[in-house]
Amino acid sequence: MTQQPQHPFDRALVLDHSDLRAGLFTGTTSPDYWNMIGPFGGTTAAVALQAVLRHPDLLGTPIALTVNYAAALEAGAFDVQATPARTNRSTQHWTVQITQAGAEGAPHVTTTATVVTAARRETWGTTDLAMPEVPAPEAVERVTIGPRGVAWIGQYEMRPVSGGIPARWDGGGEHSETRLWVRDATPRPLDFPALAAMSDLFYPRVWLRRATPVPAGTVSITTYFHVGMDELAEVGTGHLFARATGQQFRNGFFDQTAQLWSRAGVLLATSSQIVYFKE
Amino acid sequence: MTQQPQHPFDRALVLDHSDLRAGLFTGTTSPDYWNMIGPFGGTTAAVALQAVLRHPDLLGTPIALTVNYAAALEAGAFDVQATPARTNRSTQHWTVQITQAGAEGAPHVTTTATVVTAARRETWGTTDLAMPEVPAPEAVERVTIGPRGVAWIGQYEMRPVSGGIPARWDGGGEHSETRLWVRDATPRPLDFPALAAMSDLFYPRVWLRRATPVPAGTVSITTYFHVGMDELAEVGTGHLFARATGQQFRNGFFDQTAQLWSRAGVLLATSSQIVYFKE
Repeated sequence: MTQQPQHPFDRALVLDHSDLRAGLFTGTTSPDYWNMIGPFGGTTAAVALQAVLRHPDLLGTPIALTVNYAAALEAGAFDVQATPARTNRSTQHWTVQITQAGAEGAPHVTTTATVVTAARRETWGTTDLAMPEVPAPEAVERVTIGPRGVAWIGQYEMRPVSGGIPARWDGGGEHSETRLWVRDATPRPLDFPALAAMSDLFYPRVWLRRATPVPAGTVSITTYFHVGMDELAEVGTGHLFARATGQQFRNGFFDQTAQLWSRAGVLLATSSQIVYFKE
Repeated sequence: MTQQPQHPFDRALVLDHSDLRAGLFTGTTSPDYWNMIGPFGGTTAAVALQAVLRHPDLLGTPIALTVNYAAALEAGAFDVQATPARTNRSTQHWTVQITQAGAEGAPHVTTTATVVTAARRETWGTTDLAMPEVPAPEAVERVTIGPRGVAWIGQYEMRPVSGGIPARWDGGGEHSETRLWVRDATPRPLDFPALAAMSDLFYPRVWLRRATPVPAGTVSITTYFHVGMDELAEVGTGHLFARATGQQFRNGFFDQTAQLWSRAGVLLATSSQIVYFKE
């Protein structure tokens, strides 16, 4: 057993193994990041990525992560299998599955994921998605509002610039965009699992768009990472500026796009997800 | 062997099988959709999806498709394995792998994919991403420009409203947005594999942004489907309006988002991809 780390996010990421090269890890769901009926999806995405990052055959740093939430994890132990499906000269393709023992003891798949990692090289670069001009985080009030029993929200310092959770559920929504400053409530230097988790921290866009709190849950999320270790180190424990907006809402599903910038305006990650909703 | 269908896209999608329930299919790369060093990635995405759609255990219609291009397929036969990893009451999660026999005969993975399908229900809906106002397709000139030896471009009728392939490679690019009308050059009623393929038909954004034709190739694409069979039938063989724009270009990779609307303005699919580029 590994010694328990101090930060709650690091505790959520603890993966034990009996044979590192086999890529089979065991973890435990974190009460610190509990959502309504299972762990915060961002933590699950981070765990899937972490299994790849822990694998001894890893090449480079993460480029793309797709996580499909097949079923809510139950509180307790889970297995993560990370498999390098293909290793090229500068890119590597991974498949990941999270499983849990079912009521009858047979393991069932709760999560499928794919990861692409790569050895990045310095090239020309630019952005076509500049960070919006917004007030500094110190000028924006912190909120801690969330549904009862949802622990994970308390793990983040969130300062919504616009598009906070509706104060009144009156059906009067007009857009689906949220802009906020965010970082870990307990300071923690930014890494790839944290970026993966923060890409999923927006409450359901359908709540904002309709000012109606219908049941909703992420079905699949894809995150692209645009930086390496050096740029992460520059961010450190600083605030990120995060923006999410819904696109199409139709017959039980909607999609959204999201971006995460460093305070200095570097686009660290872009993400999209499709979300189930009711009614 | 199945009888060869007439439309080139249907020929590219032909999958044979010896045991349908096992989800193992055999296909052949299509010369009609050849790209520079392998098949057009859109066809590969369509083939991965098609294997799921052909599976007898399929539940519902596609919601999300992620395809990771681990290696260029060589011309010839390939195997596709579609596996239902989890079936819930109204959603189903699939993993897909495409493999080819290597030089030494051992199969190697060329493509990994995940698919989510679902039985959709009628709900409230709206769009936060309206189709731009653009001239009708009849008012926009068709182009057939493409690099030599690239067959797939000829399979589509493309009418760029803006952001066509640069006429001069002078390094003077200023944005990365392309808007075009598109449909199959040989009329074919729209279906999910066609939507999956068309989500990948934009030439590399880095060419437009830099007005420089550097080597580039899609690493991973994710497409969300927002419609069912009825809405596809309404589109039929009509034009789609397609838009793509780059977001972040940095150290060997850039990402882009894309949307496909019906001529009537229904957002049919949204897509994002991350692309490798050189220099």
